[in-house]
Amino acid sequence: MQPEAYRKLLERLSEIADLHRTAALLLWDRLTCMPPGGAAARGEQLATVRRLAHSRLTSPEFGELLEALREYESSLPPDGDEASMVRVARRHHDKATRIPAELVAERARAAAAGHEAWLKAREANRFEVFRPALERTVRLSREIASALGYTLSPLDPLIDLAEPGVDTAFCRSLFDELRKALVPLARAIAAKSPGDEDAILRQPFDPDLQLAMGKEAVAAIGFDFQRRGRVDLSVHPFTTSFSPDDTRITTRIDPHDFTNCFYSLLHEAGHGLYEQGLPRQFDRTVLCASASAGVHESQSRLWENFVGRSLAFWRFFLPRAARYFPEQLGAWTPEDLYRAVNRVTPSFIRTEADEVTYNLHVMLRFDLEQEVLEDRLAVADLKEAWNHKMQEYLGVVPPDDLRGILQDIHWSGSFGGDFQGYTLGNVMAAQLYEAAGAECPDLGAAFTRGHFQDLGEWMRQRVHAQGARFEPLELIRRATGRPLDAAAYLRYLREKFGQLYGV
Amino acid sequence: MQPEAYRKLLERLSEIADLHRTAALLLWDRLTCMPPGGAAARGEQLATVRRLAHSRLTSPEFGELLEALREYESSLPPDGDEASMVRVARRHHDKATRIPAELVAERARAAAAGHEAWLKAREANRFEVFRPALERTVRLSREIASALGYTLSPLDPLIDLAEPGVDTAFCRSLFDELRKALVPLARAIAAKSPGDEDAILRQPFDPDLQLAMGKEAVAAIGFDFQRRGRVDLSVHPFTTSFSPDDTRITTRIDPHDFTNCFYSLLHEAGHGLYEQGLPRQFDRTVLCASASAGVHESQSRLWENFVGRSLAFWRFFLPRAARYFPEQLGAWTPEDLYRAVNRVTPSFIRTEADEVTYNLHVMLRFDLEQEVLEDRLAVADLKEAWNHKMQEYLGVVPPDDLRGILQDIHWSGSFGGDFQGYTLGNVMAAQLYEAAGAECPDLGAAFTRGHFQDLGEWMRQRVHAQGARFEPLELIRRATGRPLDAAAYLRYLREKFGQLYGV
Repeated sequence: MQPEAYRKLLERLSEIADLHRTAALLLWDRLTCMPPGGAAARGEQLATVRRLAHSRLTSPEFGELLEALREYESSLPPDGDEASMVRVARRHHDKATRIPAELVAERARAAAAGHEAWLKAREANRFEVFRPALERTVRLSREIASALGYTLSPLDPLIDLAEPGVDTAFCRSLFDELRKALVPLARAIAAKSPGDEDAILRQPFDPDLQLAMGKEAVAAIGFDFQRRGRVDLSVHPFTTSFSPDDTRITTRIDPHDFTNCFYSLLHEAGHGLYEQGLPRQFDRTVLCASASAGVHESQSRLWENFVGRSLAFWRFFLPRAARYFPEQLGAWTPEDLYRAVNRVTPSFIRTEADEVTYNLHVMLRFDLEQEVLEDRLAVADLKEAWNHKMQEYLGVVPPDDLRGILQDIHWSGSFGGDFQGYTLGNVMAAQLYEAAGAECPDLGAAFTRGHFQDLGEWMRQRVHAQGARFEPLELIRRATGRPLDAAAYLRYLREKFGQLYGV
Repeated sequence: MQPEAYRKLLERLSEIADLHRTAALLLWDRLTCMPPGGAAARGEQLATVRRLAHSRLTSPEFGELLEALREYESSLPPDGDEASMVRVARRHHDKATRIPAELVAERARAAAAGHEAWLKAREANRFEVFRPALERTVRLSREIASALGYTLSPLDPLIDLAEPGVDTAFCRSLFDELRKALVPLARAIAAKSPGDEDAILRQPFDPDLQLAMGKEAVAAIGFDFQRRGRVDLSVHPFTTSFSPDDTRITTRIDPHDFTNCFYSLLHEAGHGLYEQGLPRQFDRTVLCASASAGVHESQSRLWENFVGRSLAFWRFFLPRAARYFPEQLGAWTPEDLYRAVNRVTPSFIRTEADEVTYNLHVMLRFDLEQEVLEDRLAVADLKEAWNHKMQEYLGVVPPDDLRGILQDIHWSGSFGGDFQGYTLGNVMAAQLYEAAGAECPDLGAAFTRGHFQDLGEWMRQRVHAQGARFEPLELIRRATGRPLDAAAYLRYLREKFGQLYGV
């Protein structure tokens, strides 16, 4: 028998969830539909809705409900529905309560100013123009870290916001192991690469046909954009959700390279499948949510790379793609496409990087964030450190700031806690994919036939339907039967790219 | 020097305005973009956002602010900014406070059930299926009227919600005068009508071209849908706004009659121009709003009919239309189009009615609402009364309930206070248009040249920029120099249709 306080807690959580989902719609509309004139008013609307959500989550009444439920919670199995609900609600409440409202407001102002400064610095192609704003952002990140509390590194509580239960030391050890393997792998490949593996991709591709083809692919892997979702265009692809039954993805189109639109769609559809698969029995509560940013990224990377960049996928999809683009793709084999979409090459821009070098870009940011936050590197020296690390990890130095330290929007709004999720996601994807493969035989053969349901169903049960009940490392342990480590990911990369490049 | 309480009032009003605008986006998205699966969650989001807006408007703190401002208010000129702000905020607060929250909630439930019942009744084409839901709606309308308070008719406070300062007696006298003129005018026209005046319109018209042509027309009359608005498709055309700088209109397309899309766009663009012209110095307050539903309708009808169905308009626009549809429209003259889009014929469906008979449909609903709410007619007898009045006003009797009492969605959610605005809008439009014409000479000649700015600017200054500062009748008196009456509208109709039909 659930106590009255539990019923009340659910009521409050539903209200907060509705406000978050409403804010998500305000954002989605801003990025897909809104006329430019609407920006100022939209900013006010977003601020109001977010402030109301925050004030409800941090209200003394909410805290009292949680207090009243302590005894009930400890009388229950910790992984059961009710105990999980109270525990996760308490986590949200505690974190939100620790950061003073004034700091939240200053961070919002700093993010707006930081975005302006970043745009101006990009126009001038000069990091120095951005530096003062970045120094303010770093200072605020430190203050937020102090407010949340930490013992070892100010990066710890920032990571914990995105990835509950994960800390800097865990990432550091995982990333160091990965980097030691990836740097030589990337070099060995570079020595063997002819440099024109992806020539097939550089042809004219009609934008409308690209979109139609991409939609066929995301429908094939199970994303429902008829009844329970949408696909739209935006400057930067993203996924958002207003309920498991209304999940929206976006993409962009490069008329001279179909893979931009195509893999953006597969990537976002991976995020979208996660959202569509969240446990609807917990709809409008903290449990009907992803486990973490990293787990979310594991799902997008799974469908984009592990599936969408596999030979089996192209055995299935090339005849379909050739129906949209007979002139451009009709004469090629699945093996040709497989090689083209898996070209490895050291490059300057993270978001355009291949599977092997991508994580080196991520680690570079992670390293720099740690050093700056731990006061071992000054923001004034950040550009030099960036270029030095690019040389060390990737063997190339950006010719200018646009292709270097100014490339990512992230640091204009926050510093620390965002980047590790990209690599954690890859590592998680590999371990999940390997585990799924052990339980569902012949996944590759199924892909060749256009049959993705076995993998989709496995992810739905082991990952999506778990919602936010478990912290990410626990979720992965339960789903795969062992703790998260780099082994599966390194096996995957070595096998795939070893075979592709003979290294 | 504004007192602190005034500053606080503005702060509260901004928050409430943001919530209303957010609710408007939740609705716009539901009607234009949302996948069907999203409906249930969207209902919850709307309910939450509306409940928060309502609880803020009716909070004791809000009432105390208004009390604290009484002295300040009475020390100021009543039509000044601050006094108007306090007065209009008080009106909103008082009305919202008088209706108990439980009644608001029951009405929301009844509207949802009523909509279902209405759809089922339409499927069965039987009013009896809808009757129990309608009886509940009528009962709730009476309770709301009682909560708001009235002396003469329960319809009075319901009209006042939509049209502050207007009552049943005013509408009754205006409508009776109109009806006495319109019934014989419609009959005289029917006797002269050849019945095929609009044959030109019944041709195939490509949907994409229809939309492009309609956009050219709404751009010509001044609706900004590039920087400060949008045009989308929806089942029922509507206008919504999230700020004067983000105002959105929708239309629908009949591939066999271009006027459906075309005049829907002109109508909604009229609403849109009002929203884009609201006083931005009062943005996010109760003064940055229309004066009433009737005044809003005056702007839509102005551009749809007084301008868009004028001969001068077609002298300007036919060459443009013929570029989109050379085969369908290339051989006709502006006079042919003018006649075609102004065919008068008694019909069953209000929303498809011409300028002469339209108001008779509206009056029929108004009469029945008054009789039912004043307990002179039972809901059980409503269908018979409807058909009887159709015969009396229009000379036709609906062959079934779908084309009769079940045609309008309105009564599925509320009963009383909605319909009068449609005819008030026409009457206001005529008086405004006549006054504008007296001050801006040669409007017709300007239209022929595609020059609509003089009329637009006049409306912007006299109507749009006034916001909600004045009650509708006062606004019209100030804008036109005399009280609202039927004279201008009857002059307009008699002259236009007398000339068109020789009556």
